[in-house]
Amino acid sequence: METMRWEDNKLVLIDQTKIPQEISYVTCRTYQDVAEAIKKMVVRGAPAIGAAAGFGMALAARRFDGNDLEQFREFLACAAEELKLTRPTAVNLFWALDRVKRVIDSCSDFRKLPEEILNEAWAILQEDIEINKMIGKFGSKLVPQNARILTHCNAGALATGGYGTALGIVRTAHKEGKEIQVYADETRPLLQGARLTAFELMEDGIPVTLITDNMAGYAMKKGLIDLIIVGADRVTACGDVANKIGTYGVAVLAKAHGIPFYVAAPVSTFDLSLSSGDEIPIEERDAQEVREIYGYPTAPAGVPVINPAFDVTPHQLITAIITEKGIIHSPNEANVHLSLS
Amino acid sequence: METMRWEDNKLVLIDQTKIPQEISYVTCRTYQDVAEAIKKMVVRGAPAIGAAAGFGMALAARRFDGNDLEQFREFLACAAEELKLTRPTAVNLFWALDRVKRVIDSCSDFRKLPEEILNEAWAILQEDIEINKMIGKFGSKLVPQNARILTHCNAGALATGGYGTALGIVRTAHKEGKEIQVYADETRPLLQGARLTAFELMEDGIPVTLITDNMAGYAMKKGLIDLIIVGADRVTACGDVANKIGTYGVAVLAKAHGIPFYVAAPVSTFDLSLSSGDEIPIEERDAQEVREIYGYPTAPAGVPVINPAFDVTPHQLITAIITEKGIIHSPNEANVHLSLS
Repeated sequence: METMRWEDNKLVLIDQTKIPQEISYVTCRTYQDVAEAIKKMVVRGAPAIGAAAGFGMALAARRFDGNDLEQFREFLACAAEELKLTRPTAVNLFWALDRVKRVIDSCSDFRKLPEEILNEAWAILQEDIEINKMIGKFGSKLVPQNARILTHCNAGALATGGYGTALGIVRTAHKEGKEIQVYADETRPLLQGARLTAFELMEDGIPVTLITDNMAGYAMKKGLIDLIIVGADRVTACGDVANKIGTYGVAVLAKAHGIPFYVAAPVSTFDLSLSSGDEIPIEERDAQEVREIYGYPTAPAGVPVINPAFDVTPHQLITAIITEKGIIHSPNEANVHLSLS
Repeated sequence: METMRWEDNKLVLIDQTKIPQEISYVTCRTYQDVAEAIKKMVVRGAPAIGAAAGFGMALAARRFDGNDLEQFREFLACAAEELKLTRPTAVNLFWALDRVKRVIDSCSDFRKLPEEILNEAWAILQEDIEINKMIGKFGSKLVPQNARILTHCNAGALATGGYGTALGIVRTAHKEGKEIQVYADETRPLLQGARLTAFELMEDGIPVTLITDNMAGYAMKKGLIDLIIVGADRVTACGDVANKIGTYGVAVLAKAHGIPFYVAAPVSTFDLSLSSGDEIPIEERDAQEVREIYGYPTAPAGVPVINPAFDVTPHQLITAIITEKGIIHSPNEANVHLSLS
């Protein structure tokens, strides 16, 4: 099962809003289709969004029918702007579009541009899988034999080009023969933990137990959790981490119980232009997501709601961040800088 | 809207599994009907369960057709045993059945017993409403003007004979003209916060904002919460509190943010025979509740699950417990004892 594939000059995405009830695919023929798929979370997870945006640019490039390089660049800049407006928090989206922009800027032959952009999109996707495997290798060193690992949301194969960041570490530890056990927070409102993490791990035969988000404290107090690994949507220069709503609460609980709290994030998730997590824009999503599940009302119609899609975990609560370059222990501005330079 | 009423010698319960989609009622003709309604959470909330069990005993008494007082007592003891087996955590169930037992033990005329039991059930219900109002009066002193109050699950009119414990305080503060605002955790898996708390408060015109359980940390960090008030299912001699799963996590978050964490509980919720919260039996409910919402699957079929219905908040995390006798500040064994004696 692939998060995305390029087929007949179209981007085919597995529809993550339908898993596990249905394994179906959404075919994107235009960059607008990709933008829509990102907004609706057909594709989600910071690295996967980045890769999808890259292919979105490849689709945009195929639509230009002029013969002027400058016009082509302007056309592509507009497409990039539209893709950037889909979701504000995950920085990989902007990172991927910046990579594509560098290709556009350096290409001097407009006839070659579509292929060069497509090659860059492919590179982003392929590199992401390799990066995940490196994260897995480094991160697995932190996972003891028989570890019981809590994770939140889905930082798995489906959130990335494949393999996963947090779940990449889980997969590596499992492959290395460690008898691990995963606890998955269901992750309301959109249930990525229940639907995607539980599904991925069951498919791979890795033991997983599903809990509701509000059981994490109980599980820690009962001694059921040895460590926590989550993904990230944006990491600042000091190591503050934006990730799926609820991550911060898990981190506070981990601290209170003396349980290590790890973040798995590729270097592309770092935004060194931000000094603190307070500067990360937090997406506020549709209120209806909180008032219902699959269109079925779970609350009185019209009840006021807040629906922040992410929260920020300050670096003081993070035991280590694992990137493809290694492990950043007790992250802060100095050692984030040291590790990434 | 009443949680329960006694009508034509039957117990009529509002069906709390259907609110807010449907306002419907379940009529209990036998004590077995009441036991079933408690198990299925047609009626839930510690004080409401206690009152319902009292009426369950009144229904049992009406079924006995012998004329021997000892046989009658044995028959009623069996009914009480069955009612006790419905749910293990909320102590009010046992407390109410003990009250009824004292009536049974002291009654010397078997012909008068059905009426005396019914009177006791009525007394339990009526006293509960009065007790809630006392809790409201004491508790409201802790609620400042313009307070933003987070609550978890439903400790409202529907959880009690009427008025509510935690929401009784909210109601009193509102009635006293304080411009309060409530944040309600939705409270997975059974969504009592989304379905019942939001519904009750909207009916009463008290401003309420619904959040998913995993947003509580975000809300506290953003400065949206001034204090927390929850109910209780069992309070030990040292002030440890069993309450709906997720309460403990909220208490840990409150401590981390320096936000007062209050528990509203009638004296009937105290179990002074237990010295610590570790001794409280925690009900484990059906796994399917975590795997689905309203019968619609939210996770892969057969995924392993834990489903503890309650957790325990140690007294060290509790700012005060509010009973009908007053406020127990910084609860511990000494001041719980002092306050209740």
